[in-house]
Amino acid sequence: MGAHEAGTSVGVVVPRRIGIETALTLDCGRTLPRHDLMVETYGELNADRSNAVLICHALSGDHHAAGYHSAGERKPGWWDSAIGPGKPIDTRRFHVVSLNNLGGCRGSTGPNTVDPATGQPHGPDFPIVTVRDWVRSQALLADALGIERWAAVIGGSLGGMQVMQWAIDLPQRVRHALVVAAAPKISAQNIAFNEIARQAILSDPEFHDGRYYAQNVVPSRGLKLARMLGHITYLSDVAMRARFGRLLRDGDGQFNFNFDVEFEVESYLRHQGQSFVERFDANTYLLMTKALDYFDPARDYGDDLAAAFRGAQARFLVVAFEADWRFSPERSREIVKALIAAGKEVSYALIDSDLGHDDFLLSLPDYHRVLHSYLGRVADEVGT
Amino acid sequence: MGAHEAGTSVGVVVPRRIGIETALTLDCGRTLPRHDLMVETYGELNADRSNAVLICHALSGDHHAAGYHSAGERKPGWWDSAIGPGKPIDTRRFHVVSLNNLGGCRGSTGPNTVDPATGQPHGPDFPIVTVRDWVRSQALLADALGIERWAAVIGGSLGGMQVMQWAIDLPQRVRHALVVAAAPKISAQNIAFNEIARQAILSDPEFHDGRYYAQNVVPSRGLKLARMLGHITYLSDVAMRARFGRLLRDGDGQFNFNFDVEFEVESYLRHQGQSFVERFDANTYLLMTKALDYFDPARDYGDDLAAAFRGAQARFLVVAFEADWRFSPERSREIVKALIAAGKEVSYALIDSDLGHDDFLLSLPDYHRVLHSYLGRVADEVGT
Repeated sequence: MGAHEAGTSVGVVVPRRIGIETALTLDCGRTLPRHDLMVETYGELNADRSNAVLICHALSGDHHAAGYHSAGERKPGWWDSAIGPGKPIDTRRFHVVSLNNLGGCRGSTGPNTVDPATGQPHGPDFPIVTVRDWVRSQALLADALGIERWAAVIGGSLGGMQVMQWAIDLPQRVRHALVVAAAPKISAQNIAFNEIARQAILSDPEFHDGRYYAQNVVPSRGLKLARMLGHITYLSDVAMRARFGRLLRDGDGQFNFNFDVEFEVESYLRHQGQSFVERFDANTYLLMTKALDYFDPARDYGDDLAAAFRGAQARFLVVAFEADWRFSPERSREIVKALIAAGKEVSYALIDSDLGHDDFLLSLPDYHRVLHSYLGRVADEVGT
Repeated sequence: MGAHEAGTSVGVVVPRRIGIETALTLDCGRTLPRHDLMVETYGELNADRSNAVLICHALSGDHHAAGYHSAGERKPGWWDSAIGPGKPIDTRRFHVVSLNNLGGCRGSTGPNTVDPATGQPHGPDFPIVTVRDWVRSQALLADALGIERWAAVIGGSLGGMQVMQWAIDLPQRVRHALVVAAAPKISAQNIAFNEIARQAILSDPEFHDGRYYAQNVVPSRGLKLARMLGHITYLSDVAMRARFGRLLRDGDGQFNFNFDVEFEVESYLRHQGQSFVERFDANTYLLMTKALDYFDPARDYGDDLAAAFRGAQARFLVVAFEADWRFSPERSREIVKALIAAGKEVSYALIDSDLGHDDFLLSLPDYHRVLHSYLGRVADEVGT
């Protein structure tokens, strides 16, 4: 792709490792004396530093949200559809900051980075971090970057949970909160899916209690199963039916009568599982699922979500997708209702779609129109 | 429990092993020279042999559908709520036949029984059987028992699929077909769940290509994961929320910050998984999921389900449960519509419930009232 759709791509980007030298005390009680965060930025920060936008990633995301790491690269960052010149998160107007969260596996301090105290990867000794911890870490990053207030904090799924936590915990630092395909807390069914994913990893003999790095193996079977399971929840039943139906992979229409890959949907899941194993770390996957399970901002406010939002100063855009059954529109409406009850300004968009949870990563015209026009007004407001 | 709710329990029952000495050619092309089926019966066969009812079991069921195997036993058969004197499948009027299907793991010929040719368990050499194969095998059992025509064939879930196949393949032998919580074929999402369950088992190092019996191990991690995953689909999101919510297992309300069991739903799933490992065989589980994937009676009739039903002589009762998302009411309506298009007599009951797929095993008053009154008319009709 080379110049990569010149005009709408941010082009080749270079990630930076930023050292956060301030000690960070986590929800679990442990304190990290320092940590590194991998960061990418797109677009220029304006003179009064008012046009910065923070992107919060979901379960398997990282700092590489847009553009390419080299001219020859084929696959752009995970939210390239939305970030770039002229795109909804318009890099001609905004300075976009994207990071790999603490505990991640793409260069930020996490289970697979070396603990200077031991010279070994942290592995299972890395603390379980929460959405609140991520917001604390991201705030230290904002300090390091000299950004006092974000024009917008934006995220989908687990990313949307970080957005809500920002608005609750650091109200003066968020002008607009864009919460996409999220939930105010996950359900028992969501926890159940996470628990099975964790058990798949934890029970893999190659997990070695999380110290697999030293054995030169990875718990690939477990991680593969975890990812396959995730994919079931990212697509709606209808979308799976439309994409795969009961089509057989071999064209002859005969059943195999063995356990080899047979239906198209099996082939898809195995491929998704396998490619994930090649790019993701099992210890990080475990941490991410726990952060999801623990997220429940109302918990500190007597289980009253409206009370949690009461101190927020941000204005909100909440977006849900019709066919999303992982975090259904009903869950987004719970967020909206709590915001209204708290007297906050909130826009809500329910996008007609049938793919499912994964819609938040796509460039559905209605969805992008909503983001584009909302963020256009934000840009006008901050004078960028 | 001893006499076990005297009056409504069939009491202590003794399973029988019945040898089917007729050769059986399977859909995969292989022929079994003979096979054994474990069978239980409840209630007396009447003089003209017109009051026999066949119970077809689901994924993890067996021949022990009602009563107890000993006076001291605490847990009755899997459908004891529906089978017994005065119950919907009334053993004062019907002669109920329940079997463990071919390929099962509770004594019928299957992967865990010894192949006389080798002196070893069949293991992975046991052929993959289909719903059609089960109907063939059950028909040979009917022959052996001297039952020419069933007053009713009854089953839920995968059992309901056997009922449909009976009505299609052996129309003259089924007077009434009771299809509960079933689907005319499973969806891509259903196949996806099955595929992950299979991969969990197949990738367990203790699976040993299915020859784990000789190693004196079982692929318990994989089978446990498979069962946990199944349980997610047996309960609705609403039911999980009502039963477990986000309750923590320990009463102190603090998070663990480790991967031990923490939420109630995790504890439930782990328990379900563990107890399944103690009673079920992994090779049989693999076979059962394939039988589900392959079931598609319309396939032989140009993908026209109505055409498949055209030759049926049975009258039908189709029952679905509102909260069932594994085989939703929509899938039952597809069956009903095809039956109507085929000119068949069909009653349809949609039961208000919120548990989910597992409702078919419970004694919900509306559900049991429907079964009771329908089967009462069947009993009148056959003069029992």
